[in-house]
Amino acid sequence: MSLQLPSEVPVSIETVRVRKENVRDVIILCVSVSAAQKWMYGGLHNNILLQYLAWVTYPVVLITFSAGFTQILAPQAVGSGIPEMKTILRGVVLKEYLTFKTFVAKVIGLTCALGSGMPLGKEGPFVHVASLCAALLSKFMALFGGIYLVRCRNTEMLSAACAVGVGCCFAAPIGGVLFSIEVTSTFFAVRNYWRGFFAATFSAFIFRVLAVWNKDEETITALFKTRFRLDFPFDLQELPAFAVLGIASGFGGALFVYLNRIIVESMRKQKTINKFLLKKRLVYPAVVTLLVSTLTFPPGFGQFMAGQLTQHESLVALFDNQTWYKQGVAEEFVYSSEVPQAWKHPQVGVFITLLLFIVMKFWMSALATTMPVPCGAFMPVFLIGAAFGRLVGESMAAVFPEGIHADSTVYPIVPGAYAVVGAAALSGAVTHTVSTAVIVFELTGQISHILPVMIAVILANAVAQSLQPSLYDSIIRIQKLPYLPELGWGQEKYNIRVEDIMVRDVRYITLSSSYRDLQEALITGQLKTLALVESKESMILLGSMERSQLQSLLSQQLSRARRLEYLRERAQDNGTHVPTFPQDSPSRTGCGVRFLVCYIKSVYITFVLGTFNSFTFFLKKCIFQIAEWEEQQLDEAVNFNNCKIDPAPFQLVERTSLHKTHTIFSLLGLDHAYVTSTGRLVGVVSLKELRKAIEGSVTVTGVKVRPPLASFRDSGNNSSVSEVTELHKLWSRNRSLLLPREPNLPDLDDQTETQRTCREHDAK
Amino acid sequence: MSLQLPSEVPVSIETVRVRKENVRDVIILCVSVSAAQKWMYGGLHNNILLQYLAWVTYPVVLITFSAGFTQILAPQAVGSGIPEMKTILRGVVLKEYLTFKTFVAKVIGLTCALGSGMPLGKEGPFVHVASLCAALLSKFMALFGGIYLVRCRNTEMLSAACAVGVGCCFAAPIGGVLFSIEVTSTFFAVRNYWRGFFAATFSAFIFRVLAVWNKDEETITALFKTRFRLDFPFDLQELPAFAVLGIASGFGGALFVYLNRIIVESMRKQKTINKFLLKKRLVYPAVVTLLVSTLTFPPGFGQFMAGQLTQHESLVALFDNQTWYKQGVAEEFVYSSEVPQAWKHPQVGVFITLLLFIVMKFWMSALATTMPVPCGAFMPVFLIGAAFGRLVGESMAAVFPEGIHADSTVYPIVPGAYAVVGAAALSGAVTHTVSTAVIVFELTGQISHILPVMIAVILANAVAQSLQPSLYDSIIRIQKLPYLPELGWGQEKYNIRVEDIMVRDVRYITLSSSYRDLQEALITGQLKTLALVESKESMILLGSMERSQLQSLLSQQLSRARRLEYLRERAQDNGTHVPTFPQDSPSRTGCGVRFLVCYIKSVYITFVLGTFNSFTFFLKKCIFQIAEWEEQQLDEAVNFNNCKIDPAPFQLVERTSLHKTHTIFSLLGLDHAYVTSTGRLVGVVSLKELRKAIEGSVTVTGVKVRPPLASFRDSGNNSSVSEVTELHKLWSRNRSLLLPREPNLPDLDDQTETQRTCREHDAK
Repeated sequence: MSLQLPSEVPVSIETVRVRKENVRDVIILCVSVSAAQKWMYGGLHNNILLQYLAWVTYPVVLITFSAGFTQILAPQAVGSGIPEMKTILRGVVLKEYLTFKTFVAKVIGLTCALGSGMPLGKEGPFVHVASLCAALLSKFMALFGGIYLVRCRNTEMLSAACAVGVGCCFAAPIGGVLFSIEVTSTFFAVRNYWRGFFAATFSAFIFRVLAVWNKDEETITALFKTRFRLDFPFDLQELPAFAVLGIASGFGGALFVYLNRIIVESMRKQKTINKFLLKKRLVYPAVVTLLVSTLTFPPGFGQFMAGQLTQHESLVALFDNQTWYKQGVAEEFVYSSEVPQAWKHPQVGVFITLLLFIVMKFWMSALATTMPVPCGAFMPVFLIGAAFGRLVGESMAAVFPEGIHADSTVYPIVPGAYAVVGAAALSGAVTHTVSTAVIVFELTGQISHILPVMIAVILANAVAQSLQPSLYDSIIRIQKLPYLPELGWGQEKYNIRVEDIMVRDVRYITLSSSYRDLQEALITGQLKTLALVESKESMILLGSMERSQLQSLLSQQLSRARRLEYLRERAQDNGTHVPTFPQDSPSRTGCGVRFLVCYIKSVYITFVLGTFNSFTFFLKKCIFQIAEWEEQQLDEAVNFNNCKIDPAPFQLVERTSLHKTHTIFSLLGLDHAYVTSTGRLVGVVSLKELRKAIEGSVTVTGVKVRPPLASFRDSGNNSSVSEVTELHKLWSRNRSLLLPREPNLPDLDDQTETQRTCREHDAK
Repeated sequence: MSLQLPSEVPVSIETVRVRKENVRDVIILCVSVSAAQKWMYGGLHNNILLQYLAWVTYPVVLITFSAGFTQILAPQAVGSGIPEMKTILRGVVLKEYLTFKTFVAKVIGLTCALGSGMPLGKEGPFVHVASLCAALLSKFMALFGGIYLVRCRNTEMLSAACAVGVGCCFAAPIGGVLFSIEVTSTFFAVRNYWRGFFAATFSAFIFRVLAVWNKDEETITALFKTRFRLDFPFDLQELPAFAVLGIASGFGGALFVYLNRIIVESMRKQKTINKFLLKKRLVYPAVVTLLVSTLTFPPGFGQFMAGQLTQHESLVALFDNQTWYKQGVAEEFVYSSEVPQAWKHPQVGVFITLLLFIVMKFWMSALATTMPVPCGAFMPVFLIGAAFGRLVGESMAAVFPEGIHADSTVYPIVPGAYAVVGAAALSGAVTHTVSTAVIVFELTGQISHILPVMIAVILANAVAQSLQPSLYDSIIRIQKLPYLPELGWGQEKYNIRVEDIMVRDVRYITLSSSYRDLQEALITGQLKTLALVESKESMILLGSMERSQLQSLLSQQLSRARRLEYLRERAQDNGTHVPTFPQDSPSRTGCGVRFLVCYIKSVYITFVLGTFNSFTFFLKKCIFQIAEWEEQQLDEAVNFNNCKIDPAPFQLVERTSLHKTHTIFSLLGLDHAYVTSTGRLVGVVSLKELRKAIEGSVTVTGVKVRPPLASFRDSGNNSSVSEVTELHKLWSRNRSLLLPREPNLPDLDDQTETQRTCREHDAK
């Protein structure tokens, strides 16, 4: 760790600087847009229709523009970006996700989406924007050479960027780092930890300093500062209420994820709707926005759910340290003078307002986050959680108006604290993270409720994790991004081995392969790399080669230059006239034709030939000659001399357990690994097989079924036994390797032998 | 993640319960012991000599008892335990560190050490105690079978236990989890994160609930609750002061680690002292305690350094929100009525007292933590940091008595906040962690100073990490525990490859090995496992076998039963009389003799023969026969049939970069890995070689030198080039592998070839 400072500092600071600009832009634009809407709406207080139009038009126009803009410029900018970042940090290359175009689309699209006042969040997009900054900066810095060229540094940069994204979204450096680790990583290198903190602290600092420079604040404080009493934050007897709040939030979080997925999936399944929406991409966001903004229209239904408040205002009100239910109870610790009027409807009580707010916002948020604009779901969920917590808190205050007695002194219940706990719990449940607890401490500037928050968040996580995947994992599955599910903790996991799941029919090329074999392997193989073995008989794995390498080898062999060379030679041998093809001679037409032939041959666009009638005879001759030549060429042995080979592809052994395989895949971010037996290639395992094997046992909804492969196997207690084998077995397998392999060794034989081994071992 | 709850909950809760008992014991004992000392000291206020004796006797007796007790019962209980836990979590098995004996020794030794009032901490021992609880619980639960038998679960339990240890020491669940991750892990599985939080939250809860049940507190609050103002925690213009405080703490932290190491090393080097201390182990702790307690004697020198305060009292005073320098300035936010009198000496000012406190405590803590008792260094360092911060804060308050003006309002400076920042920064610098920031928030219950704390901690870390290893790493090096240093970030690291550092002269056994080869391999090899290759010619790696396996094979072959069998057969062949050795017959003497012969043969204690004069002739004959027989036996080929082989030892390829090797070693906690080239064993890399290679470039003090191996090598910009090789090279190496290998290929040849490869690549 000792020497990382000099290399890291400039980047982080620059990242932060770039971030700063974005943050400022976004904030100023959002504020001014919201202000414009309010001003327009306020100025028209006589005519309710005009008011309605003013209230509705702004969001619809902004969201439609945002959707259209991102659609045209970079469709990758749509959505939160955290699922994609998680995939990228796993080592998968997602094209176009980290380009300048996406950056522009994301920043402008996000600004408009946030300005619309829809229940959309910004934490996910901020993570994406920060990662974009980091990637672009890395690319820029790489021009000057040095450390930025090393590929693994980029991953480190990106993981720091994720921390920056969350950190400056909430002005929460610690929570930002932890949240970004939880949502994007499976294994985390502690040496990157320090960088994350460094970058996130600066980003949070700059973000909050802007408020001071703008004279909004006197000094740097928390974003949603609370003023709960410090001496007696909560009574021990309130803890069960907090626990119940946590458990309920867990169910709520799972429901939110489920609802979100159901909306997307039902849209996709309805073919007519789907077709229509694919054609008119802007209709869906416009309709959704219209619906949501109509329902929140303050003189309409909005009056029952504090519709005129922005997310920020709602949150400030919900974290308020007064009791709304019965004002005056909490007088002694009233700091802010104004009671949040929006929540007090003359006809209906606070409870109804809160309940309506929660229910309406719940489905609105789940719906709004499916719109194709850059948006996150964290903040809306956080807000719903806060409202839910406030509801529980107000109920508690109503039930115990004098507070729960602790000895002699009366300490009234603080519903605002419940709001804080609820916010942390619900957002933790939706994202499957514990660090939302830290985020709320940093957001509110108070840590006195640490125990209730921690207990609620942990319980919410426990419930939500056993019911649904996290929101980000859910999106990953919806978008069919490559991912690796978490391993469940059933005992049987330790009894599946690589040999059970590997693909035995590996595509490979040998040292003596002809170009024809190469062509075949390229056509039939799916993986990005092909295995290179010594010979078909020995199957000793020498390394792996990238597809592109092989493709270039093949095209080199059949290249135009070589073909011309051949034709010329042939012509000279036959003594017939042949064009010599000097540069800029008229016979370049012929050359063009030959190029066409090659083109035709490969993509079979035969109809093009019709337009070249005059060349038909010549072409036919050429085609025949060339086809013959190509056949010849394809039969030649491949010359690997100028070819780059990775001599260290990742290898597993047949007996490696699924658990170990999963660990190694997720640790090293592998896409596939070869399975070897004493140096001989016997199979290949890719992410797909691994995923299937794991999901055979843990389904999406978390219901556990026996994995199909383990049912044949004795689930002995000691897993270490199954990884150690007896030599005579190993040896007999070796012998069988020298013979032509059967595609699938019978699993049952293997099984009985393992059982015997176990029994022998137990008997000792 | 979805199914981890049911399996984890019972353990964590039980762990916590066990912990609870310890915590209570320790606290009650410490408090009562301290009270006894104070009472005795207070009751003797007329006679200063008796006072001195009372003041000094208690610590000396307690520390001596603690040292003696741990020495006798379990010397493994000495020290903090974090370095050992770090080593254990790396996958190294340290014997006796997780036994019940150690547990008893640690708990009792720690209680006495803490009760002595010496500057010793309890966070490290708590981590060890919690881990002991976890290990013992796992062992206990394993009796009932199930999940606890799986080895990798134990690691998970231990990592959760570390979090519990820190968490209940400071009542800081979040900080505890993060701190334990930072000090014990290199790579962290995010799926364990949740468990850590779960366990640590419960431990912190139980720890703090005890205070409520004991009626010490009304409800659960922070351990060292501060009451800084919330509206304007600090001025932006104070940030440079905080930054300076952080940087100074960084230097201080590095100095502390250096001082601690120097003390230990100088004691070891002075041979006469060392000899004396090894004989009289209790003298050293007694002398140190005497020295320290004499200097803190309140009527003596102690009056200038608040000697009569315990660590807890000092810390409460230092975090006080008043200004000591000039009372009255901070009147408006005085909560606690009493001014800490201990810090106000009538003759000398607060500055002198603080300065003396810092200087004296600094070397005292560094000295005291070298005593052979269970103790940690975190708390003493934390205290020194707080004092240093208070000193800076008081100076600031003296320089700006009216506070730094922010617009119109006057906000006086809060020196207590500087104390908090200083404590976090210094402890962060000594331990190389950022999470001390989170710990102080949880300890003080206030998070309003998040930015100053984060900035100071990060700067302190940056400085300390570039000067010295962390205290725990320093202890690991002193104790010569197996460890893997962090990779520095020099470019040249990417240019060392496994082939440069591997040991080419690997000990191996082949399928056709005789028992004699086995014996030789066992004698000359150092590693815990031996490689099994197909044959000497092919060198194809089949797997690895544990030493113990081979030893039992060997001893089976030369076993007494087989020897007797042979003798009997031989005797029957010759027709001579031979004892038939029925059970309980008198001829068992002969049997005993033969056993002796075997014994003699192996350890060459020939003089024993003299006492068996009557058996001399018989013996000589036997010895000859047996020697002959053994020679025969040793020449037989090994029968591996009943032998367990690990078919998947970890393999690297020659071209694997040092960086990748380091990552894989630290990720998977490897001890050694075989280096293979297309399935053929060509070398082995163990932790030792890796350590040497890394430390060749980064020395202990952090000064960077060029690694010896990289100096020959072109440090081209693109590291990916060096991992991809050209086939003709690979191929020619393959051929050379078939020939008998040279023990050390000339590095230079290789080098020039690599250079050529790079250049060719660059030229393209």
